[in-house]
Amino acid sequence: MINTLYLPELREMLAEKSADQLGDFCTALHPARTAEFMEGLLDDEVFEVLSYAEPNVRTDIFSYFPLEKQVSMIQSQDRRSVAELVADLAPDDRVDLLEEVNDKIVDEILQLLPVEERRDIIRLRSYPEDTAGAIMTTEVAKLDENLTVREALDELARQSEELETIYYLYVVDQTDHLRGIVSARQLVSQLAKSDTRLKDLMESDLSTVNVLDDQEEVALKVAHYDLLAIPVVDAKQRLMGIITHDDVIDVVREEATEDAHRIAGVDPLEQSYIKTNILTLSYKRGIWLTILFCAALLTAYALGHYEESLAHTAWLKWFIPLVISTGGNSGSQSSTLVITALAMKDVRLHDWLLVIKRELQMGFLLGTMLAAIGFVAAYFSLGTGSISDALVIPITVLLVVVSGTLLGATLPLLFLRLGLDPALMSSPFVAGIIDILGIVIYMNVALLMLV
Amino acid sequence: MINTLYLPELREMLAEKSADQLGDFCTALHPARTAEFMEGLLDDEVFEVLSYAEPNVRTDIFSYFPLEKQVSMIQSQDRRSVAELVADLAPDDRVDLLEEVNDKIVDEILQLLPVEERRDIIRLRSYPEDTAGAIMTTEVAKLDENLTVREALDELARQSEELETIYYLYVVDQTDHLRGIVSARQLVSQLAKSDTRLKDLMESDLSTVNVLDDQEEVALKVAHYDLLAIPVVDAKQRLMGIITHDDVIDVVREEATEDAHRIAGVDPLEQSYIKTNILTLSYKRGIWLTILFCAALLTAYALGHYEESLAHTAWLKWFIPLVISTGGNSGSQSSTLVITALAMKDVRLHDWLLVIKRELQMGFLLGTMLAAIGFVAAYFSLGTGSISDALVIPITVLLVVVSGTLLGATLPLLFLRLGLDPALMSSPFVAGIIDILGIVIYMNVALLMLV
Repeated sequence: MINTLYLPELREMLAEKSADQLGDFCTALHPARTAEFMEGLLDDEVFEVLSYAEPNVRTDIFSYFPLEKQVSMIQSQDRRSVAELVADLAPDDRVDLLEEVNDKIVDEILQLLPVEERRDIIRLRSYPEDTAGAIMTTEVAKLDENLTVREALDELARQSEELETIYYLYVVDQTDHLRGIVSARQLVSQLAKSDTRLKDLMESDLSTVNVLDDQEEVALKVAHYDLLAIPVVDAKQRLMGIITHDDVIDVVREEATEDAHRIAGVDPLEQSYIKTNILTLSYKRGIWLTILFCAALLTAYALGHYEESLAHTAWLKWFIPLVISTGGNSGSQSSTLVITALAMKDVRLHDWLLVIKRELQMGFLLGTMLAAIGFVAAYFSLGTGSISDALVIPITVLLVVVSGTLLGATLPLLFLRLGLDPALMSSPFVAGIIDILGIVIYMNVALLMLV
Repeated sequence: MINTLYLPELREMLAEKSADQLGDFCTALHPARTAEFMEGLLDDEVFEVLSYAEPNVRTDIFSYFPLEKQVSMIQSQDRRSVAELVADLAPDDRVDLLEEVNDKIVDEILQLLPVEERRDIIRLRSYPEDTAGAIMTTEVAKLDENLTVREALDELARQSEELETIYYLYVVDQTDHLRGIVSARQLVSQLAKSDTRLKDLMESDLSTVNVLDDQEEVALKVAHYDLLAIPVVDAKQRLMGIITHDDVIDVVREEATEDAHRIAGVDPLEQSYIKTNILTLSYKRGIWLTILFCAALLTAYALGHYEESLAHTAWLKWFIPLVISTGGNSGSQSSTLVITALAMKDVRLHDWLLVIKRELQMGFLLGTMLAAIGFVAAYFSLGTGSISDALVIPITVLLVVVSGTLLGATLPLLFLRLGLDPALMSSPFVAGIIDILGIVIYMNVALLMLV
């Protein structure tokens, strides 16, 4: 929903080139809301409004536009002004942004940037996707371990111009090796003893991550230790950057969505659903659908194998979908519960026996309940009046539900044990296996009961 | 995995009552790691070790133990020492903790607490679950709007004793109405002009949430504005507390898990998988399984209705599971993609036409591909040599996949339009509808082709 409330006034101010009013507009509200009010403007108009704002306000507002709008402005506006804007953006955000921009334009912009910014962008772009290096920011409050509290505060006031927010102060030696951290709270509460040195104040038992660590590991560490930001170091413990809480929230949401996609048998998307190209999306769904389709072909051969019983008792085939979908549903419940519990670290591999015990209990409870409904439905719909005929359905349902819960719970654990992502053991995959198993169970129960 | 590395040393120090060494152990490492090293100790031993730590270190370490261990210590240890510890815990954490403790013991502990702490706990416990009030902390840096920067720093140094971390400084009037915020960075960079008043420095365009707002709304707001913490106000704009980034990460993970459970047809659990009672879990799964089972019974009646064609052509029934599971898989892919895209706000309700167009395209692409495989498999396995016989399978597969993608994508959108949670339109539910539709399509294609 685009907010059009301010558009007429903004266009009027632009026509009059009213610098004061436009400057006020840019600073009056939270930058996120200012951006919202401008979403209805054309790229040229937005860029003109932004030219009336102070540089740091301009980048703040710009960063709250939707990514597509940012990209289209970067690509359409004067390269030199764009380069000025890019130079002021947060280091991690601008790398993500340039990722989406046409390569030729990126090259032109890079050449117009100050050498330090250019190097920083090139370095950050070199880290593989989904690693700590790729999501970290290089804007970090670095302080020399020999500074006193008073000197540190002065240095911080100087650095704070360039920093988005001060989370922790990172204490380094002369060659940038990370030695410890001091919190803003500690610094403030030491104001009375302002000649204490940072190295005597700092906390030196630190949680850090390596630039090449997986982003999911980073998110788990930050969540576990309740950190505002975690320092990223290279193999030699040199401070490369930090990853802040807001990026961690993004990672957590991204990983949860990836798991949900895997559970549904979709290879995780790299972009949002709407932005993913139809062919890419078809490929990511198609590989799984094809595997599952081929597995389902086996059910046809299985049924062919039991043709004799099926031909003999007409009603047997009517309940095939019921048997199959009941097994699939109970299996996908179990696999999703176990996969999400593993992701939240509520369940660990060594809990396997407990998980199997619980799923067996649940399988029997749920299976018995559904079997009772199945018996009543089968008895009245068959109309043969034979109890042993009608018993085929409930016995099959009970066995299928128990197998479903058991397989659904153990297959993700098995995958984890093999060092694979448990979410790969998706619900449709579990359901595919249970389809075949369900038919075998159903036909054998029928062979035993229908004599 | 319990870390047993330090256990012998710790037990020796306890036997010797070596206060210095135990005090050192408590402060040497990050409290999370100290807690890890003590996980193998008995409750009595842990509590004894903690008695050698400073009160704030003690609560820090305590808060990193797993919840069950915290609860068992609260329930087993001397009430008076427990009350001392509880009084020092973060207000939001201790409320969550007491939620798990036996009510009788909670009452005994409450009576031993200072009156202010007791009132705070009772008030926080009164907010409904999943609201902002229930997850906020009441520990917040509140400063009067008339203070100067210098006075504010002094006041802050005083308050910082009681605060976990300083996020933003909240500026209030004399009756606690929230007027604005000042960041730690602003305060530090204004050190030179230390007689500026907070009211001239503060940002007054604020994002706030109401105590009764849903936690999911809170998480979206914090993520959207990239906030460290969001202030919680009552209807009269009085500052009640703040919700911090770490609690937001927990909410995001919790909500993602709830969505995953709904997608798999499990009513969301209130506790972790392992801690949920078997009967509760069976109920939460059973209601959905029963609904789906009854829907699947309809497939049996549908097949009974087509008995004539089925009896006439034996191989028709062999492909029933294939048709049904292919429809279900493509439908559950689509519904999961749309549900997760809605949760991430990548897709909104007004995008419905675009979503339908994309799913139709994808349905035709994927359906055609699977139909081709299906044709080859059917042609060779039937062995009748009749092309028109073998064509029944591919035509059915194409139609079923297109219906599956279309229904899977539109049903969650329809639910959202009706004001319901789109994740309720779970994959098994979509699959249940497609099962019946699939059989109707299959039988009618067969009637048309097999003349």
